[in-house]
Parts: sequence; C-alpha cells; structure tokens
Amino acid sequence: MLECEACGKQYDLSENIQLCRCGEPLVLERHHGDIREGKHIWSKYRDFLPLKVDEEFSLGEGNTPLLKALSLSKKLDVNIHLKNETVNPTWSFKDRGTVLSVQRATELGIERVGTVSTGNMAASVSAYCSRNELKVFVLVPSDLSNKKVEQINTYGPILIKISGDYGDLYYESLETGKSEIYFSNSNSPFRIEGYKTIAFEIYEEKFPDYVIIPTSSGGLFRGVTKGFIELKRSGIIDEIPTLISVQAEGCSPICEAFDSDEKEIRRWFRPKTIARAISNPFPPGGDDVLRKLEKHDGMCERVSDRDILNAQADIAREGVFCQPSSAVGLAALKSLRKKDKIEKGADVVSIITGSGLKSEVIFDTEQATSHCDLEDLETCIRRFF
Amino acid sequence: MLECEACGKQYDLSENIQLCRCGEPLVLERHHGDIREGKHIWSKYRDFLPLKVDEEFSLGEGNTPLLKALSLSKKLDVNIHLKNETVNPTWSFKDRGTVLSVQRATELGIERVGTVSTGNMAASVSAYCSRNELKVFVLVPSDLSNKKVEQINTYGPILIKISGDYGDLYYESLETGKSEIYFSNSNSPFRIEGYKTIAFEIYEEKFPDYVIIPTSSGGLFRGVTKGFIELKRSGIIDEIPTLISVQAEGCSPICEAFDSDEKEIRRWFRPKTIARAISNPFPPGGDDVLRKLEKHDGMCERVSDRDILNAQADIAREGVFCQPSSAVGLAALKSLRKKDKIEKGADVVSIITGSGLKSEVIFDTEQATSHCDLEDLETCIRRFF
Repeated sequence: MLECEACGKQYDLSENIQLCRCGEPLVLERHHGDIREGKHIWSKYRDFLPLKVDEEFSLGEGNTPLLKALSLSKKLDVNIHLKNETVNPTWSFKDRGTVLSVQRATELGIERVGTVSTGNMAASVSAYCSRNELKVFVLVPSDLSNKKVEQINTYGPILIKISGDYGDLYYESLETGKSEIYFSNSNSPFRIEGYKTIAFEIYEEKFPDYVIIPTSSGGLFRGVTKGFIELKRSGIIDEIPTLISVQAEGCSPICEAFDSDEKEIRRWFRPKTIARAISNPFPPGGDDVLRKLEKHDGMCERVSDRDILNAQADIAREGVFCQPSSAVGLAALKSLRKKDKIEKGADVVSIITGSGLKSEVIFDTEQATSHCDLEDLETCIRRFF
Repeated sequence: MLECEACGKQYDLSENIQLCRCGEPLVLERHHGDIREGKHIWSKYRDFLPLKVDEEFSLGEGNTPLLKALSLSKKLDVNIHLKNETVNPTWSFKDRGTVLSVQRATELGIERVGTVSTGNMAASVSAYCSRNELKVFVLVPSDLSNKKVEQINTYGPILIKISGDYGDLYYESLETGKSEIYFSNSNSPFRIEGYKTIAFEIYEEKFPDYVIIPTSSGGLFRGVTKGFIELKRSGIIDEIPTLISVQAEGCSPICEAFDSDEKEIRRWFRPKTIARAISNPFPPGGDDVLRKLEKHDGMCERVSDRDILNAQADIAREGVFCQPSSAVGLAALKSLRKKDKIEKGADVVSIITGSGLKSEVIFDTEQATSHCDLEDLETCIRRFF
C-alpha cells in the first residue's frame, strides 16, 4: 500500500504512481520485523522491504563502513563516525535506492526506466539498468557540462538534454507514459525503502545520539528517518536518534522554512553553492522533511561554502575523500558544537554520501610540493623529517 | 621470517628490509590455517596474516562483491565474475596492502612512510597515513600531471617530484634512511600479504577455473597466487585455479619473457599504452611472476589498447566503471576464448582493480545525446521506445 503522509490518502500498489494527487510524494506503509542473519543487506533486512531483491539485480550495494573519525573526534570532543557511502558500486548512496526502484519497474511489467538527475542518481540508474538490459532514459538540463555527460554516458543510457524549467521536469516526468516508463526520481517511494537500510546498518554498528544528513530533495532524510521509525515500531530500539538536516547556505529552502516555523517550503531563487549535489531549489520531499523535523525534535543547519571546503579537507585527512555535498555534515557539526547544541562526548554519525572523485577537486590542495634530483633523494627527504 | 624465493636466503623480521641482497623482492613465509568467523577480513583471515590489524588503522577495505557479468557471460559462453575492487576505501585494490604495510611501519617503530607511485598506491598510502597521523612522503615523476597531483594531494601527503629515472627510484627509496622511513612500494612483503585476501574472498564466493590478473609491478599477481597456495597447503582447496597474467601490448615485459621461455624479464623500452596504471617497464616482481606462471601452468596474455577500450565499455554495461588497466582482463578473456585456450562453460574471475573515475574518460561515450523541449517531453522520449 502507498500512503500520503500529508493528506492520508492511500493507493494500491498495482498502479505506477509516486505522487499523491495533493502533490506530495507517496511512501510505502511502515514495515515491522526483525533483522535476520545474512551476508547481503537485502536478505538481512528483508522483513522491512517491499519486495524480494533478485540477486542478479544487485551490484553488491550497502554494507558500508562506519568509520571513527580519529583526529576530528579529539578536536571536537565528540565521537564522530563517518558512514562511508562512497564505497557503493557507483560511489554514492543512491545505489541502495536504485536497486529497489529498478526492480519495482520490472514488477510493474515496465521495461523502460527514466531519471531526472545531473549526477549521482543518473550514473546509478544507468548502471543498474544497463546491467539488467532495461532501456534507460536520463533527462539532464541542456547546459550540463561535458564532463558530467561523459560520466553518465559511460554506462550507456539514452541521454536527453531538456530545455525548460528543470524543477518542473521532475513532476512532468512522473506523468509521462506511465504504463510504459518508470521514472526513478529522487523521492520515488521504492528509493526511500532502499535508503532505510542506512539506518539499519548504523543501528547494527553503533547506535548514535545524533545522525547528520545532507539534504537536497529530501529522499535520503526521509529514508533514514523511516528506517529508524520502523526499528522503533518493531521494538528493536526505544528512541530514534536526533536527526539533523544540513543544507548549504546558498540553497536552503528547508532550513529557511524550519527556522521561520513555516509548514511548507518555498522555492529558493538562484541557488549558489559549491555543493551542487544538494542544490535542489524546490525539494519534492521538503515538506515531509519539515514535518519529520518537527515531530521528532530534529535540527536544520546551514553551512557556508568556505566551511564546506574546510570540512572536505578535514574528512580527507581521516582517509575519506568525499564530495563537497557530503562534507556539509562535518561543517554543521563544528557549528553545532560551537553553539553547544550538541554536547561534549556525544556519539554522532555523519553520512558521507558520495565520492570526491566525482566532482572537480576544489579544496586547497596546494601544499609544499617540492622537487629534487634522484641523486639527492636522502638529503631531500630528510629536510621534512 | 622473510624469504627470498629466488635464492633461498632468509631474513629476520626485526629488520626493515624488503629486497633480498640478490635483488629480488622478499616474501613472508607461508601461513597455514582456517578461515574463521568474522565480519572484517582481518579477523576472518587472521590465521594467514603476519600481524594483527588494529581496528582504527582500517578504513573498511575488502569484502568486495564478486559480480556475475550477465550479458558478457552469455556472449562469451563462459561464467564471468568480476571481482570489484573499485569499492575499496580509496577505490582500488591497493588499500588491502596499504593497511598491513602501514601497520608494519609502526611495528618497526617507524613513524614516517613513503611510496613511489603515480596513482592508486599514492592515494591509498596517503589516506591511511593521514588518518593515523604518520608523516607520509609520495615520490612522483617530475612531469606528473596536475590532475594526478591534485588527486593525491587531497589526502595531505608531502609530495615530492623527482627528476631522474623513475624505475631506479624504486630501488633507491628502499635504501633510504631505513630506520627512519618505511617505503610501502609495489612489492613490499606486507603489501603482498594484504592482496592474498582477494584469493580468500574469491574462494569463499565461487571457486573458479581461471583467475585473470592485470599485471604491472607484479605485486597483485604474487599476492593472489600466494593466497591460493596457502589455501591449498592448509587443505582447504585441492588445486589452485589457472592463473592468467595480463599486460598491455605496449608494455609487456613479463609476457615477452614468458613467450620466449626466458627466466628473467628485460626492461621494456618506451612503454606506450592507455592502461597507465599497469605500465611499469621493469617490474620488480616480474621474475617471480614468471616463476609462478611456469610452476603452476599459468598463461600470460597481451592485449591492445583498442581491445582494452572496448572491454572497458563492455564492463561499464555490466554496471562497473573501471580503469583501462582493469579492463585488460576481459580483453584477454575474449582473446583466449577465440583461441579456445579457455573452454566453453568455464568459471572465470577477472579482477577489476580500480575505479574509472580516477582516469580520464577515454572510451567512446559519444552516443545519441538528444535535445528536447520540456513541452514535448512525451513525444521526444517516445521516439526511443
């Protein structure tokens, strides 16, 4: 059963529908159960999933490490854990949702899949569809850079550049040829189900006081939250951790509404941030994120581009090279510690959403690059001892 | 105990020594044991390892998926499995060896680590050392591209450009300040121990008839082979699979010697291949690879740049975007099938060594990139139905 948490309307699963008539993204009913034995996430968490994942559909997503940040934990006087989603098959968390949504398409008997995305999701959907011989359409803005086009094209999708409002395209695509093409966009109900598994994995490794989630369209936040709620409803945990949504100052429609106690987000004009992967100016899941933040006493934090770049460098020194959009979590944590909104000694998980190799390297890597002659090797190295 | 498999000489483990006086890379004595229960590879395979891995040293390397290649298996009439090493913490197999060699340095009481590498290994060593607050020196050729320098610098090493013969630098570095700096180069004995775990994981998932290994300096080949030999000596397997070393036609000193029944490789002049990560013209582990190929009835196969690029695109269509140097395995498999050196229905594992995001996208991604206006979305998409 698909439900609208805004207006309460329900829809039967046999239909290819993802948005409620009231405009809000639908969500699958809550699941209950236990975490089972198993090597792969789709078997371990099967009680909580809406479909049985075909082994051949999977590229081995999930089971990502939860890494203690060593120096940063000492420096900030909290226990920071990085949930490293950069080691998924296409190097972002999107893969967890893609598996389920692509298989959802085939269960509906649809052999064409589309997505509206300029980055991580486009690559992810293309990879899984090519593997499973499903025709895949990637709709991108007409001015997308050649570098991005190349990265997506490696997996062999049909790539179409669209002129017009890219925000409207999200909604238009979901109305397109519904019995013939399934759009796996940011807040697809089956995608949310995949993102839940991040909450389950965090629970299994180290149950934290706070979980920090970079937020753009809202899908990741909604998925992780649903995961914790289902664990609570299943009696596996007593309380859900405090959830913190983070946005870039230059595009923060959700935090803007949260800070002004609004019930609905407003479209952000002229997004401007280096964290491009989280620059959706009118997030389809935004109102739901607001509801969840309010209901569960969450926080919404905005961070500057300068702080994002510093955080990206700090995280690299812990051994993880992430996208700027993944580094917002640490930037927010620093600021929340300074304001004492997170207490000393707290256990904090920050979700690192995607690999830094995907974006241009922009943080300051200009260091003491030296030159020396092979004959002088030892003398030369010793200068730095 | 460290041993030289060429001349038989043994060395005590208390010394920082990696090359035998005869010039060959040393190797740790063979281990026996069982595969144990455990989540992390360092606990599962502890019987076979020369040291206990400190949990904080690890970035969660290993446990990578073994993926069935769906279309390619049908097309080539064999069961192809891709061992996807691109999902390691710095997106290449090097991480498995880096953990052990960096920890080896600390066990020797040395707090400085160096590496001679232009790519995957440089990033890997820098990541692990920064995390563990060890001073790390990366020695690169003086003409290394800015892009590569940036990728390595993200992790914050001391990067030094060296003028002079880069092949000689490998040997020179191992003689440098031995009590004060530990060089984790391509055939470091502790690195080889880490690469063994690839063999163990393959065994646990699907024991194959053939394992195909991209070969440059020889470290990966030597590690995987040692892993299978140790499984056999422990009575866990009866026979080791047939091992296939693959090199690029434009730099194939090992296959050249193998094909001419030589016992020693000769330096390759003017390496020229798009598979840069496997273009070592004078591989330190080359003679040992030759010995192993001969002893275990292995094969050595050379592939052209054109075939490498085609294979890279084919592998991407299976959902894995890899480096050209990782695609050589599939290129070799196609050629060996054509020559009927691998039989119909065989189980083959090809090791996919590193992520395609690390190199420039060079294979043909020029596809039907179309344009359309948002108003015409449905009509436009339907043209491709």
